[in-house]
Amino acid sequence: MKSLLVVAHGSRREESNREVRELVGQLRALENRYERIDCAFLELAEPSIPDGLRALIAAGCDDVVVLPYFLSAGRHVAADIPGEIDSVRTEHPAVSIRLAPYLGAAPGIPELLRSQADAAQ
Amino acid sequence: MKSLLVVAHGSRREESNREVRELVGQLRALENRYERIDCAFLELAEPSIPDGLRALIAAGCDDVVVLPYFLSAGRHVAADIPGEIDSVRTEHPAVSIRLAPYLGAAPGIPELLRSQADAAQ
Repeated sequence: MKSLLVVAHGSRREESNREVRELVGQLRALENRYERIDCAFLELAEPSIPDGLRALIAAGCDDVVVLPYFLSAGRHVAADIPGEIDSVRTEHPAVSIRLAPYLGAAPGIPELLRSQADAAQ
Repeated sequence: MKSLLVVAHGSRREESNREVRELVGQLRALENRYERIDCAFLELAEPSIPDGLRALIAAGCDDVVVLPYFLSAGRHVAADIPGEIDSVRTEHPAVSIRLAPYLGAAPGIPELLRSQADAAQ
């Protein structure tokens, strides 16, 4: 059973965390190749990355893609998120947990900036 | 003369700031409706937003679009960036400085997440 976990930084502002949850709702409407799509947060919001992974695994997911909702390849993307994933891999060696490239690395970003610039008021 | 200023948060990691500069280079290659496309940083990197705007204005730009390279509508997007823009508007009332919606608000984000998930290793 295939699933996707979108991982954001997490914010003290609940509105920012809600933006991520709403985005995941939009992704669910768009994407039918994953039986479950959830989100998790590196810090400041729930669920944590390990808890998000454990919930997917408890629901029967044995193939999980983790997607960092980050714009730059800083420490969080390079070290913290892989570290959180590794801790759950050790607990569940039979589950495949794969890391997708972070959002900022997407080849479509310049095109998206272009369309946002067109929307300037 | 039309120009675009991509505004990122700025990081202590010069590599993250370089990612933004490279992105602006890609945007220049894609986009020919702006005579100049530059970047600026809210903090921790140069140029600042006012300095970035002043450089465009000094080069003859009288129509500037500011595009926040941010994923969520936090304080930086809602208050700090508009405040920096306002300070330069006061200095240069004849220049049009318009604010584009932040990147995270782009309708194409869910589709971009979908393609990043496909690239998981």
